[in-house]
Amino acid sequence: MNYPLELIAPSNYVLATTEAENAPIVLAGVLLSLIVIYLASKLGGELSRMLDFPPVLGELVGGVVVGASALHLLVFPESGATASDSMLMTVLQLFDEISPEAVTSIFESQSEAVSILAELGVIVLLFEIGLESDLRELQKVGYQAAIVAVVGVVAPFVAGTAGLMLLFNVPVLPAVFAGAALTATSIGITSKVLSELGHLKSQEGQIIVGAAVIDDVLGIIVLAVVASLAKTGEVDVFNVVYLIISASAFLIGSILLGKFFNKTFVFTAELFKTRGNIVITAFIFALFMSFVANAIHLEAILGAFAAGLVLDETDKRNELDEQVIPIADILVPIFFVSVGAKVDLSVLNPVVPENRQGLILAIFLIVVAIIGKVITGWSVFGKPGINRLAIGVGMVPRGEVGLVFAGIGAASGALDKPLQAAIIIMVILTTFIAPPLLRLAFGDAPQDAVEEADAAS
Amino acid sequence: MNYPLELIAPSNYVLATTEAENAPIVLAGVLLSLIVIYLASKLGGELSRMLDFPPVLGELVGGVVVGASALHLLVFPESGATASDSMLMTVLQLFDEISPEAVTSIFESQSEAVSILAELGVIVLLFEIGLESDLRELQKVGYQAAIVAVVGVVAPFVAGTAGLMLLFNVPVLPAVFAGAALTATSIGITSKVLSELGHLKSQEGQIIVGAAVIDDVLGIIVLAVVASLAKTGEVDVFNVVYLIISASAFLIGSILLGKFFNKTFVFTAELFKTRGNIVITAFIFALFMSFVANAIHLEAILGAFAAGLVLDETDKRNELDEQVIPIADILVPIFFVSVGAKVDLSVLNPVVPENRQGLILAIFLIVVAIIGKVITGWSVFGKPGINRLAIGVGMVPRGEVGLVFAGIGAASGALDKPLQAAIIIMVILTTFIAPPLLRLAFGDAPQDAVEEADAAS
Repeated sequence: MNYPLELIAPSNYVLATTEAENAPIVLAGVLLSLIVIYLASKLGGELSRMLDFPPVLGELVGGVVVGASALHLLVFPESGATASDSMLMTVLQLFDEISPEAVTSIFESQSEAVSILAELGVIVLLFEIGLESDLRELQKVGYQAAIVAVVGVVAPFVAGTAGLMLLFNVPVLPAVFAGAALTATSIGITSKVLSELGHLKSQEGQIIVGAAVIDDVLGIIVLAVVASLAKTGEVDVFNVVYLIISASAFLIGSILLGKFFNKTFVFTAELFKTRGNIVITAFIFALFMSFVANAIHLEAILGAFAAGLVLDETDKRNELDEQVIPIADILVPIFFVSVGAKVDLSVLNPVVPENRQGLILAIFLIVVAIIGKVITGWSVFGKPGINRLAIGVGMVPRGEVGLVFAGIGAASGALDKPLQAAIIIMVILTTFIAPPLLRLAFGDAPQDAVEEADAAS
Repeated sequence: MNYPLELIAPSNYVLATTEAENAPIVLAGVLLSLIVIYLASKLGGELSRMLDFPPVLGELVGGVVVGASALHLLVFPESGATASDSMLMTVLQLFDEISPEAVTSIFESQSEAVSILAELGVIVLLFEIGLESDLRELQKVGYQAAIVAVVGVVAPFVAGTAGLMLLFNVPVLPAVFAGAALTATSIGITSKVLSELGHLKSQEGQIIVGAAVIDDVLGIIVLAVVASLAKTGEVDVFNVVYLIISASAFLIGSILLGKFFNKTFVFTAELFKTRGNIVITAFIFALFMSFVANAIHLEAILGAFAAGLVLDETDKRNELDEQVIPIADILVPIFFVSVGAKVDLSVLNPVVPENRQGLILAIFLIVVAIIGKVITGWSVFGKPGINRLAIGVGMVPRGEVGLVFAGIGAASGALDKPLQAAIIIMVILTTFIAPPLLRLAFGDAPQDAVEEADAAS
């Protein structure tokens, strides 16, 4: 019996083997990148925790250390790096002889894979934040928190954008982006610090956390609007109005539709009996919402956030929460470390004269970021004797969402390197100074019982 | 104050925006691919479960349905598909106007990202299989299981490889690959079926499970050897000996070093206090082992498997198991569905005359796969009255590792399409016939208590 020729040497054999030669090296590059990312995130996070700062800050700083600013282990072509800038590619070349053309293609393939993993990381992060934001709790805190939130979004946004345009002649688009990056208070960091200080359940603490939640939602809408502007490259009033309406309609619409989907979700998850019935069903929904948000030219993360809000209302919430945690644990650090790694802090090195403009920009952003949030305390009405300074200071820490702004702004080309570096420095500094300032503002006298703080941490 | 020109229009702005224009579409493509993958895996898995077959089989069939054989939602450039073959790209073009050059680059980028996710999926799968394989249990079952395992690896490998070369004139490399794909019994499928039949704790059940574990280890070593041969493209006796020694040394070496690393792992995981302390520490280790295995030109999955074996010996085992499950739940289906999607079953369509050779090949592989395992029952010694047929039939189902062979063989170019399709058909059929055959061999009389079956399922 003869074996047909095509079975011995199929036409795509040569192509397939050329690709196949590179595939294990691309995989090796991705594995090495992930090892670097996890080491940076864990070492940075733990060091940060030991110094009493939020771990996320350490993950970011860990990213800065392994990235374009220092070790060059993790660099990305979209920030202008080539394969020869990458220490990781140098390591890979120790194990395999790689031709010069292959080096570039391997570098780009593995960087793209890491970027997609980071994007999936931020989608999971926003899904988790959505799962953690309780719509009913929010309704309780009511108007006080809403006013603090709105002031805390409008004040730094207007002051930041206008200041950058008028004082520094920054073009509209980057100015709007940087202004928007000043808006969102970090729920995670704020509530962590409050619980550590024992003020989570105080009147001030309740308003701060409520405002931070609303603030995050507003921030994500602002992000969706600003990122879409970055795609078209110009600020068109009609477009802004369309985006604000579509982002709000998407979020409100998904919450309303969610009341119906809740039951479908629980029904489907219970119908399924194989492994991963809850988490895969939830992921199909979250990815679908992300895809829809992306398809109507909003941000994918807005969809993930909406999906989280919706599923938080179901009976499967606790089970889902538990299963999402390990998934977030392995995907989210890829995002934070990548954001840190993409920043080139050397553009702010004060020794180089031409960097000083960027430095002044960073100082300006930090000042606006702090003052724009501290004043929110004085927007609280009908609460004589409340600690207004504490509320304002409590709103200062930025964090996850601010970094999302920096990451997406840089990826879309709206933010140049000095502005991006200035935003990262702003996020790092506001988060670093918040814990000691809050201690000062509260006069170092914890009000809650210790077990409450422990329960919330 | 003037804003320096480079801050207004940085030199990489044009490049960054061109890339940025495609980036959200690539992300949309990946999101859509994942939605398709999860839907296919869950619908297929649940359907399979309802028909009393193992869910993994349904995931595979789900992949075949959405892939190159039918719906063309998930097709890959390395199997010769272009962007215009992809239904998914057609869907993306409904939402965005994409230029013809961009279409190809977007198609390739999203396919590459899905492939990398699938590779991470198989790494996590083998890590999990390693975690589930208990070295101490293995030592108990002892010689009986080891002999069944060795016979069950050698018999189908020799018969398959020799048969393909002598009867069908298949070249050495693909023949070795196809022969190797016949070796590994699926621990997951076998133990699932045994527990469903209530025979998991019987003498026969213990030997089958023990042999399946050893068998999987042998299979992974065979895979490492065969895949490395595929890279060099030729079978060189010196190389084969080197690979068998290095793969065995790697596995035994890691287990021995693991005794030391165990303590380091527990110490590190306990030192860390931030989220993900256990799972990230474990992943750093698993990825490092995978990278080392890849770097010394074995397969990355051998490293992941070794890492799982090592960490299974620690006190953190149960906690780690629990956290790895959801991660495996979202990553592993990407692998199974991709394997199914890459197969083009139309190459085995009997209506087309030139396909008949491939079909005959498939039938030959299936016959060898069944007989090669059924005879292992007669290698058991010193156990008069034991149900030899049941032991042999229990070794028949292939599964995860067989699919890993098909996937890696196709990616490396060693397997052409008809042989790859024949292997997939062999895996599907052996798994489909095992449950009814086992019922017949055991005479349909469950021995175990029902709760034991439940506890094990």
